[in-house]
Amino acid sequence: MPRTFAEVLHPGFAQTMDITGPMLVDQRSAFQHIQIFDTVRNGRVMALDGIVQISDRDEASYSEMLTHVPMIEIGDVQRVLIIGGGDGAVAEEALKHPQAQVEMCEIDGEVVEACKQHLQHIHHGAFDHPRFTLHIQDAFEFMKDPANKGRFDLIIADRPDPVGPAQVLFETTFYELIRDALTERGVVVFQNGAPFYQPEELTDTMGQLRGVFAHSGCYLTVTPSYIGGFMALTWGSKGTSLNQLGSDDIARRIGDISLQTDYYNAAIHSGAFALPQWIARLMA
Amino acid sequence: MPRTFAEVLHPGFAQTMDITGPMLVDQRSAFQHIQIFDTVRNGRVMALDGIVQISDRDEASYSEMLTHVPMIEIGDVQRVLIIGGGDGAVAEEALKHPQAQVEMCEIDGEVVEACKQHLQHIHHGAFDHPRFTLHIQDAFEFMKDPANKGRFDLIIADRPDPVGPAQVLFETTFYELIRDALTERGVVVFQNGAPFYQPEELTDTMGQLRGVFAHSGCYLTVTPSYIGGFMALTWGSKGTSLNQLGSDDIARRIGDISLQTDYYNAAIHSGAFALPQWIARLMA
Repeated sequence: MPRTFAEVLHPGFAQTMDITGPMLVDQRSAFQHIQIFDTVRNGRVMALDGIVQISDRDEASYSEMLTHVPMIEIGDVQRVLIIGGGDGAVAEEALKHPQAQVEMCEIDGEVVEACKQHLQHIHHGAFDHPRFTLHIQDAFEFMKDPANKGRFDLIIADRPDPVGPAQVLFETTFYELIRDALTERGVVVFQNGAPFYQPEELTDTMGQLRGVFAHSGCYLTVTPSYIGGFMALTWGSKGTSLNQLGSDDIARRIGDISLQTDYYNAAIHSGAFALPQWIARLMA
Repeated sequence: MPRTFAEVLHPGFAQTMDITGPMLVDQRSAFQHIQIFDTVRNGRVMALDGIVQISDRDEASYSEMLTHVPMIEIGDVQRVLIIGGGDGAVAEEALKHPQAQVEMCEIDGEVVEACKQHLQHIHHGAFDHPRFTLHIQDAFEFMKDPANKGRFDLIIADRPDPVGPAQVLFETTFYELIRDALTERGVVVFQNGAPFYQPEELTDTMGQLRGVFAHSGCYLTVTPSYIGGFMALTWGSKGTSLNQLGSDDIARRIGDISLQTDYYNAAIHSGAFALPQWIARLMA
């Protein structure tokens, strides 16, 4: 019998992945249980506390969509803050924009070390890039620092599901700290769960975002390893609205930086803002 | 311990669903093992030979997209043929177009009887509709009948995965029979699997369709119970190309028939033709 990883995120439903080879990482940090392993069908996977965080087979659909949709839309993004994202996937995407200074605030240094070693083909050495700065720190403390007020054109909240210690990343205080860390034209995007299994997570966040930001909305991506079909990516801003660019402008901006991707393109950029009826109803 | 249904479609990966209540159907027909049961997270599910065919929680994303995208795009569709589709979900959608005569060619009468009894809230009595005709017959035999040549404006191949007896529904002969059963402006759409787990199924079908039809392509839907993220819906035609209508025209045609949906809308219609880079590469 193969060893099998069974995800524990949604009671009554699970995805199970047969594991090949040895467990590459299986350790408990001060914050969580970190596992990295190879699977028969889903490539190399990292799970935290039994929940899939990334797979090298489909991480592009997540990291590219969190990053390039706002960066192409805002244009000329100078400073990016990634909250979480210890695997380096989002950092690698943000660094593809040649003017961007990228900072990451990740609470768990052990996650970063494990990913540096075992997910090199995902982050491609982003941690050592001259335009990259890593802060091993609580994101609340980082954003409370007066030096970080009004500082970022883009904040990417690569947050996990609202389980255990990550619940604070879904509180209104968190959204207010982010708003204050943005420039006037800044935008924040959030991982917001799979509405099929977590409908209230989308409804609740949209209500909070409308209370804190002048503009807000949702777009979609499809990452098979985040089980449940569509994943909602929500956003808020003081000034810039997303989904304002036409296809020609998007394609031109993509071409200007010769952006190489596995998921994102100009058609997907616009198409991602089309919401099925059932998801549109959850936004109300 | 709850009873659990574990799908067998993709070796090395499975989705498992905890079952509530009794098995509603658990029988072997001349063609397959038919199971209908209620689940904790995925609603009422029908599985054939251990593979999920439909769930009432997300069937709209499948049946509406197979039906309304071509029907809205072709316009004034007179005759629809559904191949398979014994659960009645696609038939119910096609019948929402008030001029359409809808025929279904389903090989397994026991599937129809089980769905009539247990999936009423999906088909809403489509089997008894005055514009609906059921043929319990092999689709190859049905289409070989000279009376059915050049007869359908739309053929919807609601085919299962290419496993066991359904493999003939992926052979070039099948595509040729369909072509000959279409009107000059007719279009055929096919269920074509989840490219994440079945990439060769998309590549192979596109090659066959290009050999048989003047026009062909692919659009996407997301049905969580069909595990693997995006599901590919492929199409072929002699005359009509899909993805030619602008949003305003689509919205007007939807409004003309007061179409009520849970997934499909004008933005989704256009957005479904946006293919991620990795899927576009599989089309080549």
